[in-house]
Amino acid sequence: MFVIMQNSATRDQIESVTRKIQKLGHIAHQVHGDSRTCIAVTGERGSDDIARIELLPGVARVVPVTLPYKLASREVKPENTVVRVGSVSFGDGNVVIIGGPCAVESEESTLRIATQVADCGAQMLRGGAYKPRTSPYSFQGLGERGLEILGKARDLTGLPVVTEVVTTETASLVAQYADMLQVGTRNMQNFMLLKAVANQGKPVLLKRGMGATLDETLMSAEYLLLNGCQDVVLCERGIRTFNSHARNTLDVSIIPAIKQVSHLPIIVDPSHSSGNRTMVLPHALAGVGAGCDGLIVDVHDRPDEALCDGPQALLPDEFRTLLKLCGGVASALGRELGQPIHEARRLSIASG
Amino acid sequence: MFVIMQNSATRDQIESVTRKIQKLGHIAHQVHGDSRTCIAVTGERGSDDIARIELLPGVARVVPVTLPYKLASREVKPENTVVRVGSVSFGDGNVVIIGGPCAVESEESTLRIATQVADCGAQMLRGGAYKPRTSPYSFQGLGERGLEILGKARDLTGLPVVTEVVTTETASLVAQYADMLQVGTRNMQNFMLLKAVANQGKPVLLKRGMGATLDETLMSAEYLLLNGCQDVVLCERGIRTFNSHARNTLDVSIIPAIKQVSHLPIIVDPSHSSGNRTMVLPHALAGVGAGCDGLIVDVHDRPDEALCDGPQALLPDEFRTLLKLCGGVASALGRELGQPIHEARRLSIASG
Amino acid sequence: MFVIMQNSATRDQIESVTRKIQKLGHIAHQVHGDSRTCIAVTGERGSDDIARIELLPGVARVVPVTLPYKLASREVKPENTVVRVGSVSFGDGNVVIIGGPCAVESEESTLRIATQVADCGAQMLRGGAYKPRTSPYSFQGLGERGLEILGKARDLTGLPVVTEVVTTETASLVAQYADMLQVGTRNMQNFMLLKAVANQGKPVLLKRGMGATLDETLMSAEYLLLNGCQDVVLCERGIRTFNSHARNTLDVSIIPAIKQVSHLPIIVDPSHSSGNRTMVLPHALAGVGAGCDGLIVDVHDRPDEALCDGPQALLPDEFRTLLKLCGGVASALGRELGQPIHEARRLSIASG
Amino acid sequence: MFVIMQNSATRDQIESVTRKIQKLGHIAHQVHGDSRTCIAVTGERGSDDIARIELLPGVARVVPVTLPYKLASREVKPENTVVRVGSVSFGDGNVVIIGGPCAVESEESTLRIATQVADCGAQMLRGGAYKPRTSPYSFQGLGERGLEILGKARDLTGLPVVTEVVTTETASLVAQYADMLQVGTRNMQNFMLLKAVANQGKPVLLKRGMGATLDETLMSAEYLLLNGCQDVVLCERGIRTFNSHARNTLDVSIIPAIKQVSHLPIIVDPSHSSGNRTMVLPHALAGVGAGCDGLIVDVHDRPDEALCDGPQALLPDEFRTLLKLCGGVASALGRELGQPIHEARRLSIASG
Repeated sequence: MFVIMQNSATRDQIESVTRKIQKLGHIAHQVHGDSRTCIAVTGERGSDDIARIELLPGVARVVPVTLPYKLASREVKPENTVVRVGSVSFGDGNVVIIGGPCAVESEESTLRIATQVADCGAQMLRGGAYKPRTSPYSFQGLGERGLEILGKARDLTGLPVVTEVVTTETASLVAQYADMLQVGTRNMQNFMLLKAVANQGKPVLLKRGMGATLDETLMSAEYLLLNGCQDVVLCERGIRTFNSHARNTLDVSIIPAIKQVSHLPIIVDPSHSSGNRTMVLPHALAGVGAGCDGLIVDVHDRPDEALCDGPQALLPDEFRTLLKLCGGVASALGRELGQPIHEARRLSIASG
Repeated sequence: MFVIMQNSATRDQIESVTRKIQKLGHIAHQVHGDSRTCIAVTGERGSDDIARIELLPGVARVVPVTLPYKLASREVKPENTVVRVGSVSFGDGNVVIIGGPCAVESEESTLRIATQVADCGAQMLRGGAYKPRTSPYSFQGLGERGLEILGKARDLTGLPVVTEVVTTETASLVAQYADMLQVGTRNMQNFMLLKAVANQGKPVLLKRGMGATLDETLMSAEYLLLNGCQDVVLCERGIRTFNSHARNTLDVSIIPAIKQVSHLPIIVDPSHSSGNRTMVLPHALAGVGAGCDGLIVDVHDRPDEALCDGPQALLPDEFRTLLKLCGGVASALGRELGQPIHEARRLSIASG
Repeated sequence: MFVIMQNSATRDQIESVTRKIQKLGHIAHQVHGDSRTCIAVTGERGSDDIARIELLPGVARVVPVTLPYKLASREVKPENTVVRVGSVSFGDGNVVIIGGPCAVESEESTLRIATQVADCGAQMLRGGAYKPRTSPYSFQGLGERGLEILGKARDLTGLPVVTEVVTTETASLVAQYADMLQVGTRNMQNFMLLKAVANQGKPVLLKRGMGATLDETLMSAEYLLLNGCQDVVLCERGIRTFNSHARNTLDVSIIPAIKQVSHLPIIVDPSHSSGNRTMVLPHALAGVGAGCDGLIVDVHDRPDEALCDGPQALLPDEFRTLLKLCGGVASALGRELGQPIHEARRLSIASG
Repeated sequence: MFVIMQNSATRDQIESVTRKIQKLGHIAHQVHGDSRTCIAVTGERGSDDIARIELLPGVARVVPVTLPYKLASREVKPENTVVRVGSVSFGDGNVVIIGGPCAVESEESTLRIATQVADCGAQMLRGGAYKPRTSPYSFQGLGERGLEILGKARDLTGLPVVTEVVTTETASLVAQYADMLQVGTRNMQNFMLLKAVANQGKPVLLKRGMGATLDETLMSAEYLLLNGCQDVVLCERGIRTFNSHARNTLDVSIIPAIKQVSHLPIIVDPSHSSGNRTMVLPHALAGVGAGCDGLIVDVHDRPDEALCDGPQALLPDEFRTLLKLCGGVASALGRELGQPIHEARRLSIASG
C-alpha cells in the first residue's frame, strides 16, 4: 500500500505512521516530495491494515496496491479456467447458449419448452424451481416438484440443467437434480449461501448483483473458490443506473475488464438485462461482440401465460434466430457456438 | 391499470386487448384520443396481469395504478406504526439513538463500549455477532459466543440489543439473545431469510439494499408484515451512485418519501452511509433534519484496533457530541431524543 | 394524460379537477375503480398542463401519454432518417467508421494520422480544434489554426471532417471548415449552442450527455430539428454509473431503444466510453452487435505524446483490426461497413 | 504520482519506465515489494504526464497524489472564503436564504412575489430571465425584459438579485442587472461560459452538474478562479441516480466533503433536488443539518399558474415556515440565518 500524508503533516506524525507500519510487521519507505511525504509499504498482505493506517493523524489517504481477491485473480492463475458441465465447456473460447423458461411452471410446459430449446441447438437448459420474487404475492416456484420436472427434462433432451439455490438448507437437494447451481443476483453477497453452494461439488453460475462492483463480484467468487468450488462461471445481467429505457443497464465493459484481471469465464443474461423481448437479441449480440463465454436466455412458447417474466421471454423461433445470429458474430470473431447436444445422442439418452 | 395502445394500433387489436382484459375478469373502459386509444381497467387487483396485457399486439405500454405493496402502505393503514423494543419506541415522534461497535470483538471491549454508549445517553445497543463481509479473508464475527456477550452487555447496561441475522438456520438462536433482529443491506432481498426472521416474534430492523428502490424496500417489508411480523423499522444506509467522496450516497429523500406512502418508521445509519468518521455527524444531522425516527451509529473507543469498519466508528466523546447536537436539531423541529435508559434503572438491572 | 386521484380524494376534489381540465380546453373521462377514481384526459397536446393538474388537491399523480418529443419521434416520421455527409451515409443500414486524433495537435501529426486513418479504410475523419477540458490546465485546442489543418487533412485524404463546436460565436467559423458539426457530451443541454449549430446548414453529431436519459437526448435533438437542422446523428459515449472498471459505462441498450421510438441514426464512441485502449475493440464490437449505425474512434500513432486522451487512442494497426472485425460482425448481421473513400478518388482529390 | 507495475513486469520494463519519468523531468524512486515493483515519482506538477506513463509496457496503473485543482483547494488557501453580495455574506458561518420564482413571468407577479420573499425574511432574490429548458416547447424566459423586471424588484425590496447566464454573448448584459451570476447545472462544464462569466467582476453561483463528481465541480470552480473571479459559491442541487421517488437525489455528503478539501462556500437548492413541494422542507433541513452555507428556494404564490417548475415552488407561507425551522436548526448548531434586509432600510431603498 501507499500512504499519502497530508500536506500539513508534521515530522512527528510521519514518524509515528512509519513506526505503526513497522509494528504491523511491514517495511516502510519514506518518499519526500515537494509538497508532501508519502510512505510506500512493502511486505504486507491483507487489507485490514489499511483501516488501521488511514485513521492515524496526518494521513490523507491510503492506496492499496495488492488486489483484494487472490484465487480469482489472473495473477495467481494466469491461464483461463474452463468449467465443464457434462459435455459443455465454458471458457474454452466457444460461446455456450443456455435456454429455458424463467420458472418451471408445470411438467407439460417444461418438457415442451425444453424440447424446443434443444431443437433450436442450445447446449443447456435453464429453469427456476425456487424463485426469489420482489413481491410476496408473485409465484414463488414449485420447489422440489420443480426440481423433479427439471430432471425429467434433462432425461428427455440430454441438456444439462442449471437452476437456482436460494437457501442453505436446500442446497444439497438442488444439487441432487441440477448439473450446475445458480446463485442469483439478489444473493450474490449472501455469503453463507455461497459457502453452502460451494460445498456441493457442482459447478456454480454466479450472477452479478445489480449494484455490485467488479471487485465485489470477484470477492463473491473468491468465497466459492476458497470453499472448494473451482468451477465458477460469472454472469453479467445488467446493473442499476438512472436509465429507464431498459429494465437494467447491460454493462458490456465488465466482460473485457474481468478477462484482464481474472481467469474465470463470464456469460451474459440478455433477458434480465433488457426485461423486454424486443431488446434481448441486441443485448445478446452486444455480449458476444464484447467477448462473453455464453448466454443464458429466457424462452417460452406461450409468454402471455408465463407465471414469471413473460415480457422478456423469447419465442422458440426468436431463440432460433438468436442462435443463428450469435453464431455468425462469434464466427466473425474466430469463435463458434458450443456444439449442440447431438440429435442421435439426445434420442439415445431419451430412450435409454 | 391503464393500457396505452400504439398510435398505429388497429381496431382489431384494440378489441382483442379489450376482450383479453374481460377474460381476466376485469372491466375495460375505452378512451379514444386524437391520436391513440387508451383502455382504463378497473376491478383488477394484482400485478401479474400487467405482464399478460403488455405483450399483446398493439399495446405501447401499461401503467399500474395500484401500489405493489399493501400491508406496508399508508392507504391500508393510515396511522403511523410505533415499534416498541422494551421501553424504546420507534415512530412516536422521538428520535431513537442506537450505538455500539460494528462487530462484537471480545467480552471486555464490548462491555466497555456498551457502558460508554449508555453513559452518552443512547437508548439501544448495536453489535454484530455474525458479520457478512465482502472479503472471505476479513473477520466474520464471533457467532454464538458474540450473542452471549451481547446478552451480558444488555444485562450490564439495560440497553436493548439489535443484532444481525444472516441465515435461516440461526434466526431462532439470534432471537433468543436479541431484542430486535436486523436484516442487513446485502440480504434485503433474501426472501427466505425475511420469512425466517418474521417468524421469530421480535421487532425487525430492515436495512435498505444499496441498489434498492423505494418500492423494492417496501416490498421486502411486505414479506415481513405478511409473515407475521408487524414491528418493522426501515433503515436508510446510503446507496450506490457515481460519487466517490463518501463510501455511499446518503439518500435523505427517502425519509419523507417513505412517510408519504407508508406507515413504517425509518432510521438512518450515518456510519455506513459515510464510511468515514469525519462525515458521520453531518450525515446524522441531515437525517434528523429530514425527519428520520432514529440513528444507528458505530461507536468504538479504540477504532484503530477495530476488526471491522474502524474508520467510520465514532469515539465515545464524538458520539456524545452527536447526541447533543441531534437533540438540539430534533428540539428545533418539535421533537426530542428518546429518553435514555434511566441511570437508576440501569444500575438496578446491572446489580439485579 | 391520465390523472390518478388519491384513494382518499373527495367527490368535490374529483369534480374540481375535472372542471380544471375542462377549463384548460381538454375533455375529461372519469373512471371509477374499486378503491379510487382516475380521469382520462383527451384533446391535450403539450406537457405544461401536467404541472398544473398534479398540484391540485386530491391528485396522486399524473401519467403523460403523449411523447415529449415530436419531430424526433418515429410516430411523426416512421421511416429511418439517412444523414448524408458528402458521400457518406448514416442510417442506411451500413456501419460508418470515423477515425482520427482526439485533438488536432500540429499540421504534421494530423496529416500523418489522417492518411493512416484513410489507409485503414475509414470513411470520415475526426479531430478537435476546440477542446472542452475538465481542467483549465489541460491543452485546450489550437482553435482556428486547428480548423485550417483539418481542412488540409480533408483535401489530402478526401475524408469528410467532423469537429466540435463549443461556442455560439464560433459556430459559423467551424461550419466553414467542417463537413459535420459535433455537439459534445458536456454541451448536450447547452440549448443556445444547439440553436446556433442548427442554423449552420450542416449535419450535426449530437453526443449524449453522460447523465442524460433517452428522453432528454431526444429533446436536445428536437432543438436541432425544430431550428432547421434535419440531419442529426446521435452518439452514445458512455454514461455515469457506480462502475470504476471503465471510464464510463457504455449503454448499448439505448441503441435498440432509440430505434424503437425515433427515426434518427445513432453511432457509438468506444474510445470515450472505455477510456482505455484495451477496451475500445470490445466496446466497438458490442456497439455493432447492438445495431449502431457507426463508430467514432480515437486514433493516434504516438499516443504517449498525445496532448489529449492518449490512453484511449488506438494505434493505426489496432484501428485496422477494428475495421476488419467490425466488418465481419456487421456482415454476420446482414450489414456492411460503409464504403471506404476510393483510393483513386482519394488520390485525384489530393492531387486536384 | 505512484506507478504500480504489473506483477509480470520485466526488469527492462521497470527501467524503461524509470527513464521515461526522468526524461519528463521528475525523480523516480523504485520500491521493490514481494510480488511487484512500484515507482514513487516526486517533482511533478501537472496531470498530463499520467497519461504518458500509464501507456508504457508493464505499467498496471498510475495513482495521482497531487489534487487536480489548485486555487479551489484548501491546501492552497486554508481559510474559508467569504463571498459578499451587497450586505449578504456566504461562508461566514451563517445560513443565507435566497427565494423567488423559478422564472420571471411578468412584472406584476415578480414584484409581488419578491415583496413576499422579503417579508418572509429572506436575504436575496432569485429569478430566471433566461431559462434553459429540456423541451424547446417550454417557456424559455423573458430575456432582457426579465432582467429589467429583476432590477425593479431589487429596487423595490432591497434584495440583491441572482440570475442565470446562458450564453457568452449575454454575460455582460446580465451582469448589468444582477448582483450575482448563476451558472446552471447543465452548463457546469460549459467552459467558455465559465470564462465569460468570470470576466464580469461579479460573484458567481456555480451549480453542480447532475452527473458531476466532486473533483469535476471543483475543476469548474477552478476555471472561474483562474479567470479572475474569486467570489465563487457552489450549489448542490441533486444528482442523477436510480431513484425515482424524488426528481433528483440530494447528495448531502458533498457538503462536508467540499469543506474538507476546499475553502469555497456551498449552498443547497432543495427545490430542484426534490422537484416536489412536499419534499422541499426536509431537503432544506437536511442541507442545513449537513452544514451548508445557504439555501436557494423556488417561491410562487400561484404555483398552478407558474410557467416553470410550479410543482416544486413553495407558497409564501410555506417559505416562512422553512425560514423559521431552518433558523432553529442552524441555531441548534451554533449558527444562525443571515440577517434579513432590515425593514427600514428596505423602505428607504424603495423610496430612495
